[in-house]
Amino acid sequence: MATDSAARLNGKDVVGIAPLSPSEIQLILDTAEELLEVARRPIKKVPTLRGMTVVNLFMEPSTRTRFSFEVAEKRLSADTLNFSASASSVTKGETLFDTARNLMAMSPDFIVIRHPNTGAPHRLAKEVSASIINAGDGINEHPTQALLDAFTMRQRFKSLDGLKVVVAGDIRHSRVARSNIYLLNKMGAEVRCAAPASLLPLELEKLGVVPHLRLEPALEGADVVMMLRIQQERQGQSNIPTLREYYDFFALTPERLKFANQNALVMHPGPMNRGVEIDSAVADGEQSVILEQVTNGVAIRMAILYLLAGGRSEFPSDS
Amino acid sequence: MATDSAARLNGKDVVGIAPLSPSEIQLILDTAEELLEVARRPIKKVPTLRGMTVVNLFMEPSTRTRFSFEVAEKRLSADTLNFSASASSVTKGETLFDTARNLMAMSPDFIVIRHPNTGAPHRLAKEVSASIINAGDGINEHPTQALLDAFTMRQRFKSLDGLKVVVAGDIRHSRVARSNIYLLNKMGAEVRCAAPASLLPLELEKLGVVPHLRLEPALEGADVVMMLRIQQERQGQSNIPTLREYYDFFALTPERLKFANQNALVMHPGPMNRGVEIDSAVADGEQSVILEQVTNGVAIRMAILYLLAGGRSEFPSDS
Amino acid sequence: MATDSAARLNGKDVVGIAPLSPSEIQLILDTAEELLEVARRPIKKVPTLRGMTVVNLFMEPSTRTRFSFEVAEKRLSADTLNFSASASSVTKGETLFDTARNLMAMSPDFIVIRHPNTGAPHRLAKEVSASIINAGDGINEHPTQALLDAFTMRQRFKSLDGLKVVVAGDIRHSRVARSNIYLLNKMGAEVRCAAPASLLPLELEKLGVVPHLRLEPALEGADVVMMLRIQQERQGQSNIPTLREYYDFFALTPERLKFANQNALVMHPGPMNRGVEIDSAVADGEQSVILEQVTNGVAIRMAILYLLAGGRSEFPSDS
Repeated sequence: MATDSAARLNGKDVVGIAPLSPSEIQLILDTAEELLEVARRPIKKVPTLRGMTVVNLFMEPSTRTRFSFEVAEKRLSADTLNFSASASSVTKGETLFDTARNLMAMSPDFIVIRHPNTGAPHRLAKEVSASIINAGDGINEHPTQALLDAFTMRQRFKSLDGLKVVVAGDIRHSRVARSNIYLLNKMGAEVRCAAPASLLPLELEKLGVVPHLRLEPALEGADVVMMLRIQQERQGQSNIPTLREYYDFFALTPERLKFANQNALVMHPGPMNRGVEIDSAVADGEQSVILEQVTNGVAIRMAILYLLAGGRSEFPSDS
Repeated sequence: MATDSAARLNGKDVVGIAPLSPSEIQLILDTAEELLEVARRPIKKVPTLRGMTVVNLFMEPSTRTRFSFEVAEKRLSADTLNFSASASSVTKGETLFDTARNLMAMSPDFIVIRHPNTGAPHRLAKEVSASIINAGDGINEHPTQALLDAFTMRQRFKSLDGLKVVVAGDIRHSRVARSNIYLLNKMGAEVRCAAPASLLPLELEKLGVVPHLRLEPALEGADVVMMLRIQQERQGQSNIPTLREYYDFFALTPERLKFANQNALVMHPGPMNRGVEIDSAVADGEQSVILEQVTNGVAIRMAILYLLAGGRSEFPSDS
Repeated sequence: MATDSAARLNGKDVVGIAPLSPSEIQLILDTAEELLEVARRPIKKVPTLRGMTVVNLFMEPSTRTRFSFEVAEKRLSADTLNFSASASSVTKGETLFDTARNLMAMSPDFIVIRHPNTGAPHRLAKEVSASIINAGDGINEHPTQALLDAFTMRQRFKSLDGLKVVVAGDIRHSRVARSNIYLLNKMGAEVRCAAPASLLPLELEKLGVVPHLRLEPALEGADVVMMLRIQQERQGQSNIPTLREYYDFFALTPERLKFANQNALVMHPGPMNRGVEIDSAVADGEQSVILEQVTNGVAIRMAILYLLAGGRSEFPSDS
């Protein structure tokens, strides 16, 4: 493969974009490009992680991320064990620390963790010898999402350098936004955030991001428009307007999309609220790469597992 | 195997009995007969679907059908991914259409779907390239159940042609009844339905079925008696009598069974309500083939997966 | 391996410690010792149960036991199917008997069962040809826990014979205590039970156990201290004091631990309530083997599966 065989990630974990160097990000994206091809084979399976165990430790409900990881793990021939909050000892009052040490006592090779508390994966990574992959921690980071987003942008544009990317919606509560901002900054892209004032976090400018209170000016000259999900269950709370108002002012409609560059990509991390933050005409339109994002997510997660496994087995070939 | 290697189903999906031709039904039954033998081996596994992914998308609670499919999938060496309603994005307001397109973006080879809405599998089949297998859609169809029922009848009788089959119970809300009626009609059997008037659908006669308001006359000369499950949670609603009354008038008791032919088979799709629609003496009696139905269900589901895979790999031999 | 190839368990099931002979217990412990090594390999997988199906039938919530079994099953290359109460037909009014017969109709090789009713695994074992493994039945037995506890003791002490073991806490409702008492008695250890009077069952002395109403006198000269979990949800009920009182009188604190032998082992079946039945300083202290218990649990479960499979395949080597 293009990346030489000594190519490695520096740590044993991927707990966020913040700790990754630009060359590590590059390595993950390049590796994913080669692994994307596995999904097109009749036998979509390589023996890379055979005999290794991955625990999917999801302390928040999730379908698509858990699912995407599970597909990635199975394509690499790992054994997977799902451990979800509702069924777990957590309800019996055990601490994350004890749960994790107990899991470790069964010697898994990887733990993929989603947790409502910021920093849970980071703390876990220090406690255990398994490789930890952050699948979303509170409102902090969701690194595999940012990596799959970057991968999707790179499929269309030669490089992320100089790219103008709009991230719009509930920036304040979004770990997707935060990981994307970190990654795009590291790779030289220009990030603009658009949201109602109540959903724009104060520290945005410190992150080198240009804030906008309306979508239209943010879109001017944009190469990528990433719409975030509005959590309908929050509607009516002080900092979220009604869904109708939100649609009127912040939804990506065909009209608004015209403010962006003609070939601008439309992205969404899913699940979409059609008619709330995005219009169906745009979600299903020619500029949308929303489903490519999903496909790429599997490749990114395979790449991370592959790289963390550290070339313990040779590179995937038909098995 | 007996069926020649060019034998195929016409479409990429099995969404119902209605779209299948008699020769396709025959092919599925013949294939299941050969696959039944796999369950008797010490190593009950063949490599037919190795490297292929099956998504079990269950939008209604189910244990036994999901379980039977999962056993079938694993015996064929497929990777399985379970996606159930309660844990799913569906609760986050995503449409079936978006869920399905998202699943497809991860390139599964098969989607087994159970859904509360009539026609959901049919719509899905048009949207995606994966093979769709209907595991029950609303009150419409449950084709794998009808196929396993037919298989079980064929094990005892040379042919379905001319067979007198009684289907009794809540015909109106039963997708099992509907799929059985379609299949038995296509294969030349005579179908009689027995139910209280409130549970007999109006269109029965259009389907070529003889309706009965009492069980005894329906049973006369019958070769097969299939009792449907009464959903106890519906008791007390206008169209369901009390369980006691139901037992008195419609339960299959040893006395009533005598109205049927001496060797008539007793069937039930499960789970049974002993003492409601069926008496334990009959359920566990010599004429009962209720457990054979369960065993045969795995073989039928293996056969469908095998045939839809289209002979991509050679036929199962010891691996 | 050390145990000769003809070594077998006498029955097809492991439903409790009560029916096992000392030499069968010895055999399980010896086999686990050899299988423990599999967890240290880079490829932690052996082909022993390839093509065999294990159903994990959990009618009570459980994470760690279910998980430990699943790890064991996957390390032996079995196909696993999880069947849990909440999702099951049980809620539809089906009996355990029917559920089990239905499962059997799909020909699994093993059923691992946890059930709220005493004796459920024993009844199941008589009904079906699959090997039944009891993963906890009501307040009766939890044999794999007692075996992993014995294994952990044996790692530190040459033999169980003459060992002084304290079991402390809610003895009355504990299947862990009961299985441990049976096992330790059979293997010649001396068992002392310490608990408030309301949590000490009357039949203790008949079991050859010395009862204590305070922890300190029980600890004198003890080689092993096993603390049981207090179920916080029972607090306030007549036979459970407040958690604070419980801590004051029965928690294993560093001070109390000094009453035991200097090298006494500290054990807990998990999940722990830190600050209720055990102090964190003890749980994480040098004498604690609580995490070794978890690791050993996988090896014990592999050993039982391996032995029940009856040497159908050769002994695990690198695959």
